[in-house]
Amino acid sequence: MNLLLLSNSTNYGQTYMQHARAKVASFLGDQKEVLFIPYAGVTVTYNDYTAHVQNALAEFDITITGIHTLPSAVDAVKNAKAIAVGGGNTFQLLKTMYENNLISAIQDRVKAGVKFIGWSAGSNVAGPGIYTTNDMPIVEPPSFKSLGFLPYQINPHYTEEALENHGGETREARLMEFIQLNKTDVVCLPEGTWLETTNGATEFGGGSSFKVYRHPDQVFEVEADASSDFLSKG
Amino acid sequence: MNLLLLSNSTNYGQTYMQHARAKVASFLGDQKEVLFIPYAGVTVTYNDYTAHVQNALAEFDITITGIHTLPSAVDAVKNAKAIAVGGGNTFQLLKTMYENNLISAIQDRVKAGVKFIGWSAGSNVAGPGIYTTNDMPIVEPPSFKSLGFLPYQINPHYTEEALENHGGETREARLMEFIQLNKTDVVCLPEGTWLETTNGATEFGGGSSFKVYRHPDQVFEVEADASSDFLSKG
Repeated sequence: MNLLLLSNSTNYGQTYMQHARAKVASFLGDQKEVLFIPYAGVTVTYNDYTAHVQNALAEFDITITGIHTLPSAVDAVKNAKAIAVGGGNTFQLLKTMYENNLISAIQDRVKAGVKFIGWSAGSNVAGPGIYTTNDMPIVEPPSFKSLGFLPYQINPHYTEEALENHGGETREARLMEFIQLNKTDVVCLPEGTWLETTNGATEFGGGSSFKVYRHPDQVFEVEADASSDFLSKG
Repeated sequence: MNLLLLSNSTNYGQTYMQHARAKVASFLGDQKEVLFIPYAGVTVTYNDYTAHVQNALAEFDITITGIHTLPSAVDAVKNAKAIAVGGGNTFQLLKTMYENNLISAIQDRVKAGVKFIGWSAGSNVAGPGIYTTNDMPIVEPPSFKSLGFLPYQINPHYTEEALENHGGETREARLMEFIQLNKTDVVCLPEGTWLETTNGATEFGGGSSFKVYRHPDQVFEVEADASSDFLSKG
């Protein structure tokens, strides 16, 4: 499989995809035609969302086609040369993917080698389930199970910061609860970072190290240059 | 129905329930025996959680009994003189309530007048569904539908603060997404505040005003002393 999973679309204070444009272009290589799935967008129209992504990648001669503009979503996936899934609300994204019967269609294409790019919610759905999304459950998908390209969960937008003078759970507390109840590892991607899998080898990029949470209560840091071993053994 | 729904258990810098103990005691009145449902606790044992709540309320001669210490959870609810549902993870709470067949059992008792106290996750489940929880979906409940005592959703721990230099969605952005897709109002409870419903009249306490989010994109502030009208019309 060929996966590029970004933590986020926009680094604080930068323009949309500014930190990741060159990475997206080099991952795609000669493949310039991308089918875009904008289903995670809730307060933006699919057309506007697609145009936004197109604008961000235009300098690399990449062509973005919104799946909603094609007559059949399933056929669009079957014919896709590369697939990108954008961020937004993970629950709305997964629900709409199920409604359009896209889960197995995308699985089939990506397992056949078609390149897959996700960011934020789009990276969440690459894991076994959406159990470690940071999003609010504003709609109910028929299942939490997602694409399952990875043997571990992703936590995008990872941070150890917390609001001052606020009693809500920190990200760490939330993930400690997840690993208490589940045996699946969680790979945490701070903003600005990504995972890239090409033909079985996985690399961590955009940062120097990342945190892994493991059942029942372990948290450890993995150096970027040591990440391939850890990530490929799952 | 008689409901006391707290935003949170612990104000920043205070001890457990310090800000709400007197309110809980006055709401309970002469009813000193409370059945406690600790299912939202994930990284704390049910025994420790129950003891923690007991300690916080001991000065008012309130007796807290953990539902897990009784032979039948359903019978415990059927015999309960007052019910309290504590905070923690909302998904784990609702999943465990379903596993123990407690949804209709609690609904029956509370509709018959038994006093119900919730905080944080325990307040979330008093609404139509858990769609506006702030918690991570670490486990999958059979449904997002919850107790439905209110015609609107609660958002506990409500804040308009956001992490600096972080691109994750703000609370406002998350709730704007909810009302874009749903016609149910959201009543937002800042930390330190609560809703109290007694025989059909609802009051907002612990603060001077609260925010309401309404489909498709309205956000407005309701003054505490005007709240009864707004809240009872749902």
